[in-house]
Amino acid sequence: VRDKLVGVIRVVPRHLWELYVRATSRGQDLPVTVVIGVHPAVTLATALSPRFGVFEVDVASKLLGNLQVYESPIHGNPVPLGSAIVIEGFLSRDMAEEGPYVDVLATYDRVRMQPMLKALKVYINVDELTHVILPGGLESSMLIGFPREAAIWDAVSRVVARVHKVRLTPASGGWLHAIISIDKRHEGDAKNAMMAAFAAHPSLKQVIVVDSDIDPDNPSEVEWAIATRFQADEDLVIIRNVRGSTLDPSSRDGLTAKMGIDATKPLNAGIEYEKPRIP
Amino acid sequence: VRDKLVGVIRVVPRHLWELYVRATSRGQDLPVTVVIGVHPAVTLATALSPRFGVFEVDVASKLLGNLQVYESPIHGNPVPLGSAIVIEGFLSRDMAEEGPYVDVLATYDRVRMQPMLKALKVYINVDELTHVILPGGLESSMLIGFPREAAIWDAVSRVVARVHKVRLTPASGGWLHAIISIDKRHEGDAKNAMMAAFAAHPSLKQVIVVDSDIDPDNPSEVEWAIATRFQADEDLVIIRNVRGSTLDPSSRDGLTAKMGIDATKPLNAGIEYEKPRIP
Amino acid sequence: VRDKLVGVIRVVPRHLWELYVRATSRGQDLPVTVVIGVHPAVTLATALSPRFGVFEVDVASKLLGNLQVYESPIHGNPVPLGSAIVIEGFLSRDMAEEGPYVDVLATYDRVRMQPMLKALKVYINVDELTHVILPGGLESSMLIGFPREAAIWDAVSRVVARVHKVRLTPASGGWLHAIISIDKRHEGDAKNAMMAAFAAHPSLKQVIVVDSDIDPDNPSEVEWAIATRFQADEDLVIIRNVRGSTLDPSSRDGLTAKMGIDATKPLNAGIEYEKPRIP
Amino acid sequence: VRDKLVGVIRVVPRHLWELYVRATSRGQDLPVTVVIGVHPAVTLATALSPRFGVFEVDVASKLLGNLQVYESPIHGNPVPLGSAIVIEGFLSRDMAEEGPYVDVLATYDRVRMQPMLKALKVYINVDELTHVILPGGLESSMLIGFPREAAIWDAVSRVVARVHKVRLTPASGGWLHAIISIDKRHEGDAKNAMMAAFAAHPSLKQVIVVDSDIDPDNPSEVEWAIATRFQADEDLVIIRNVRGSTLDPSSRDGLTAKMGIDATKPLNAGIEYEKPRIP
Amino acid sequence: VRDKLVGVIRVVPRHLWELYVRATSRGQDLPVTVVIGVHPAVTLATALSPRFGVFEVDVASKLLGNLQVYESPIHGNPVPLGSAIVIEGFLSRDMAEEGPYVDVLATYDRVRMQPMLKALKVYINVDELTHVILPGGLESSMLIGFPREAAIWDAVSRVVARVHKVRLTPASGGWLHAIISIDKRHEGDAKNAMMAAFAAHPSLKQVIVVDSDIDPDNPSEVEWAIATRFQADEDLVIIRNVRGSTLDPSSRDGLTAKMGIDATKPLNAGIEYEKPRIP
Amino acid sequence: VRDKLVGVIRVVPRHLWELYVRATSRGQDLPVTVVIGVHPAVTLATALSPRFGVFEVDVASKLLGNLQVYESPIHGNPVPLGSAIVIEGFLSRDMAEEGPYVDVLATYDRVRMQPMLKALKVYINVDELTHVILPGGLESSMLIGFPREAAIWDAVSRVVARVHKVRLTPASGGWLHAIISIDKRHEGDAKNAMMAAFAAHPSLKQVIVVDSDIDPDNPSEVEWAIATRFQADEDLVIIRNVRGSTLDPSSRDGLTAKMGIDATKPLNAGIEYEKPRIP
Repeated sequence: VRDKLVGVIRVVPRHLWELYVRATSRGQDLPVTVVIGVHPAVTLATALSPRFGVFEVDVASKLLGNLQVYESPIHGNPVPLGSAIVIEGFLSRDMAEEGPYVDVLATYDRVRMQPMLKALKVYINVDELTHVILPGGLESSMLIGFPREAAIWDAVSRVVARVHKVRLTPASGGWLHAIISIDKRHEGDAKNAMMAAFAAHPSLKQVIVVDSDIDPDNPSEVEWAIATRFQADEDLVIIRNVRGSTLDPSSRDGLTAKMGIDATKPLNAGIEYEKPRIP
Repeated sequence: VRDKLVGVIRVVPRHLWELYVRATSRGQDLPVTVVIGVHPAVTLATALSPRFGVFEVDVASKLLGNLQVYESPIHGNPVPLGSAIVIEGFLSRDMAEEGPYVDVLATYDRVRMQPMLKALKVYINVDELTHVILPGGLESSMLIGFPREAAIWDAVSRVVARVHKVRLTPASGGWLHAIISIDKRHEGDAKNAMMAAFAAHPSLKQVIVVDSDIDPDNPSEVEWAIATRFQADEDLVIIRNVRGSTLDPSSRDGLTAKMGIDATKPLNAGIEYEKPRIP
Repeated sequence: VRDKLVGVIRVVPRHLWELYVRATSRGQDLPVTVVIGVHPAVTLATALSPRFGVFEVDVASKLLGNLQVYESPIHGNPVPLGSAIVIEGFLSRDMAEEGPYVDVLATYDRVRMQPMLKALKVYINVDELTHVILPGGLESSMLIGFPREAAIWDAVSRVVARVHKVRLTPASGGWLHAIISIDKRHEGDAKNAMMAAFAAHPSLKQVIVVDSDIDPDNPSEVEWAIATRFQADEDLVIIRNVRGSTLDPSSRDGLTAKMGIDATKPLNAGIEYEKPRIP
Repeated sequence: VRDKLVGVIRVVPRHLWELYVRATSRGQDLPVTVVIGVHPAVTLATALSPRFGVFEVDVASKLLGNLQVYESPIHGNPVPLGSAIVIEGFLSRDMAEEGPYVDVLATYDRVRMQPMLKALKVYINVDELTHVILPGGLESSMLIGFPREAAIWDAVSRVVARVHKVRLTPASGGWLHAIISIDKRHEGDAKNAMMAAFAAHPSLKQVIVVDSDIDPDNPSEVEWAIATRFQADEDLVIIRNVRGSTLDPSSRDGLTAKMGIDATKPLNAGIEYEKPRIP
Repeated sequence: VRDKLVGVIRVVPRHLWELYVRATSRGQDLPVTVVIGVHPAVTLATALSPRFGVFEVDVASKLLGNLQVYESPIHGNPVPLGSAIVIEGFLSRDMAEEGPYVDVLATYDRVRMQPMLKALKVYINVDELTHVILPGGLESSMLIGFPREAAIWDAVSRVVARVHKVRLTPASGGWLHAIISIDKRHEGDAKNAMMAAFAAHPSLKQVIVVDSDIDPDNPSEVEWAIATRFQADEDLVIIRNVRGSTLDPSSRDGLTAKMGIDATKPLNAGIEYEKPRIP
Repeated sequence: VRDKLVGVIRVVPRHLWELYVRATSRGQDLPVTVVIGVHPAVTLATALSPRFGVFEVDVASKLLGNLQVYESPIHGNPVPLGSAIVIEGFLSRDMAEEGPYVDVLATYDRVRMQPMLKALKVYINVDELTHVILPGGLESSMLIGFPREAAIWDAVSRVVARVHKVRLTPASGGWLHAIISIDKRHEGDAKNAMMAAFAAHPSLKQVIVVDSDIDPDNPSEVEWAIATRFQADEDLVIIRNVRGSTLDPSSRDGLTAKMGIDATKPLNAGIEYEKPRIP
């Protein structure tokens, strides 16, 4: 925030950036309506990254069954009914330094030149609470990771018999580390699953594959599987200098080393690989 | 061929095998109508491996615009008009040794117990030529490879900016070796492309990624790219003991070592990496 | 348990085994007094594995300040006052199959020929509660891991400037996986720490080294450090075919692959490596 | 070409360079007679790189049985009868920038300071055709590769039972990639052959070893051997940071990674490794 | 030596350096009494590096049974009776360039800014011989290596059944290379021994482990063990980029690659692994 | 020795074996004259392994300037004048078990079926001393290694500027380990030298390359070069599963892992890499 009505915001190079570039290349600022404090389904819809041309408001409407919107006073953009704060203004051609702010990985992202948001009017609905999402926290990782988990599920399902669960872990921002439980039918299946996961989500840095008796949401079970079903010389895959997430501070100009851990038991495993049960 | 009307045929574990298993588990032979000598579009349709429930005859009809069929005399199965040979009979619950015959990789496949085909009648259309496909030859590799090339194209397109061409090489039976030309935008892109290709076609054993100035259908250009743009310690990816094709005689119980070769030039490459032009 | 007064017990090859071998080599059964249900400090003392010749009862006495014991009625062995159950009898030269029981790793150990415990008398103090330790549970891992954590602390302290915390994780039975937080003074320190840890506890299979801003008891912080400070091609150490724990079902005749993960940040790390703070 | 009678030419550091250095160190230009358009056997002789002191004109004479020469008008150097163009002049102590021209690898070589060729007279035999060799083309690779193939044959013959064919591939300029077919008597023979090849031709970057049933001049057969007889984790040899060809743009100050591919079948190979035959 | 009474000396960052820093931080020079030409037991005592607070004069006294000392005339420091040269003076706050001198590895150490030694008086006992130790020679390596050999013995004894001999080799300055002979009870023992050795002496760069029939002091026996009992792909351990000795010129900012060689025979070795005996 | 006139001897598969096979395939025993106790030059000549057709007696004659021989009484074979013992007889078609005897590596070779030597007459020159060569000792390694050192010299000379010394070490039987000192002109030269050495002597298992200031005959200098000029992650070459010596007990069916150590200093090395000199 630079002034009462002026701030700088980070625009990641997706749809809004595309619209901003189109406007500025015509010598214009981009008229925007910023909405803060909405129904969680609206938030989720905005995180799904549908392809260009699909409007996230329509997605939210689908998720909710029905979403009532009204036209914003200045630009006439659709605003969900019950929004807490609405800002109308322009994404200016003027840029300024933004950051360093904490990003999805819970690390400080670097300072970047970003567009200034120049507000014309700010409407505050004093009867509404505003739900603020802490970057790098659990909500952030769930919103970010959700559509990627679906993409990984889809890709891995094509190469192994059955996928049980896919989880992008909260501790990695819902972005860098995946845990996948599968039904293993052939030795080697876990490594095929790794490649499918790396292909489905190029930012993925680490993937752990476990059997269906291990719950990816239970870190103790996953660690127990690594302790008792994994040998680092046979069951580890490392791919060097491949494109990963530029948010990872340890990456090298966006190149990273991806690691896959096959913590599945052998197909012919005996009782020594079973989870104990209290009789 | 065991007798005038009796032979043994290889049924790979896909749709026909599923139907055969359903029949035999009910204690019945499976009534079949074998059609030999058809329009190439029909042959192509049968090689596409659509999902269970999609009838290849409908696919062929789509490809040709229109496909005329008649009902077979005994079982009433649809037979394309103009087929050269039609055999009506049963896939018997009796099995016998089949092979060793040459398979798609141009290697002798192992001997297997397979169902016997017991013919009731064989109709031969003496006015038609029969187009026989040599296993392991160019036609075989093109038919087999075609749908997989499409799957690889689709998967790689999701991780790199643009795919130019995907070729499963004839010398590898259109099955084990792929060459992919891409537009490279980031260092590391080629390795992301490799993983997408291995995920899209699990039998794939080797993939070579080249820049868009190299034609995957020109082996000399591809080899020249490897000779002048590849360093084996930095640009090679090997994944050990992952599931591959059981047809490959060098595989170990279906486990194989997959190899990826990044023969793209660096992003900042100078004139020394350019293909020479005769002025 | 084979009979009212007869059971089979696992005697690991340490002090009791030594005493048993001495007795049986003289052709005698070993007189034993089994005590169940004691003060936790006594339990801890028995888990410390002091060197042969140091009596665990003395250690317990030291821990408690004072430990009152009485002589057992038959063999005259010292029994802590307030014990819940006391069994007097012999470890017989006769052996029988023991197991499969769950061991410290929470896996089923294999069946072994072990000595039979033949009881003469069983005294039960009906006023006392008996504290049973579940093998593979948290108490088991804490008791087992405690003395090893001290040994690792001692060894790592000799090769790096300062050790903050050493934890053998509960999910690995307090036995296979360690997490160590250190003050790093030189690049490479973390790898020296790994070797010291592997030397101090030969059963150790995996060690993760983190900076002092990461708490080894907080799995999320440890995973975050791996996600943002670790590169698998530079920061990973694997030692193949070295002696590890025979309890690990994935080990090969006691040979295992040990893995070390250096999740410390570089010495000259900037703000992008810092943990975010809410202002 | 700088002027009607003045050009710059690349003199590689072999015999002519030695003569030029001797002359210039005495403060003199080197008198030369350049001959263009000769019998192919003369061209071949000049490419053989015999040791210093053996005159290539004598080699050509040996190859042809008889070679008629006459003395050049100005310097009295021997000129083959029937040469198309003869230039008499001096390799001047003056140097100038040469290039970038395409070299044997079909890449643009870098610009170098090279001696100027100052012609006194140019004789053109209007009745003769001049055979110009395109650098990087098939003739260039055959002329360059021929003597190296002989050296590789000689070296490999000393370590394996029998060598069938050695080919430096045209696509690698007849310089960087070799394919060698051998009779294999012991497992491991192919890797011994690789080392002999790398020793015999230090510029060699890649060598593929195949069995005698594979023709090194048939790229499809060679690729088929790699597809069906090679496993990248067992049959690949990589030597890092060894001296290779400075012409390779991907080399690092002349250091390269050499790669050897053992595409021979096992000694006890069954029918599944055989080339199919049409009965 | 800069002047008749002024020189520069290298003070390694141990106890004397600590005392020097304490004095200079108070704005004072450090009064010192330099003693040259003493009983070898005194020299050995000074090389043992006991912990801060233990006086090396006391250690020497212990080693000799009795050590007579007198007070130095100026500072009153204890001087062993019979010392050849005694210099009294100050380690000045002034520093100057020292070196390049040869260090324990028999390499030229780099030039450093070091304290000047300003002498007040030099006493020379004309009846005594002075024993000068050549840096990098055998005496230097024995003095330096002795306490480290004891530390390695101690650490390795904790992980293998029995250690026979530990030798830090003279050719590596008694500092970088160790040879350890052990009784091997389990496959893998030698690698556990390596890690214990690397942990016990962080400057260690190479360790060779042999069986008890091989004498670490006999280089021919050690090499014979490597020639006949070692396979470089199974028995070699390399740890990259770990902290080692900064004296090693090939190290990278103190980071080095440590190498362990397991030259022990298999546990079930037959007669072909035995040392031959003349009947 | 089986009887007064009958023994079993090991015939390695070279020239004598070829002659024996020719005789036995004609159904005949091979007439032989065994000569023991000759001039060292004759012994050396027999160790040179010239190609089939070159008579070692002629080589010895060349080495000595002149060698007087006489015809043996029974077979008329040439016998050097002054030989201590001459045995005339036959290599019989009958075979028997030979060994286990100590071979050149100073290990017990395995027992083999070998031809029996049936003597007709044994002549002993009582005035001559017999020089017996101890297998595995220094003389054995020098005789065996000499011609291989020459072959390695020849091969390495073709790939590096200058070779100073080649030594096959006595401790490896003059057979498995080589040390080569070279003039290094390019980084990477040492690795080219390794490959040339492995190609020149396929039994070679380890090669160490040093600079010309290091004497391969001085083990301390060689070890010092490894300690101060070698980094195991950059300067080590390992070739797995390549054919080596079957005499090495650690080899796997004749397959071995060859190791090359580049202990040369960098081309731009400073004073810290120099050998110290006493001023």
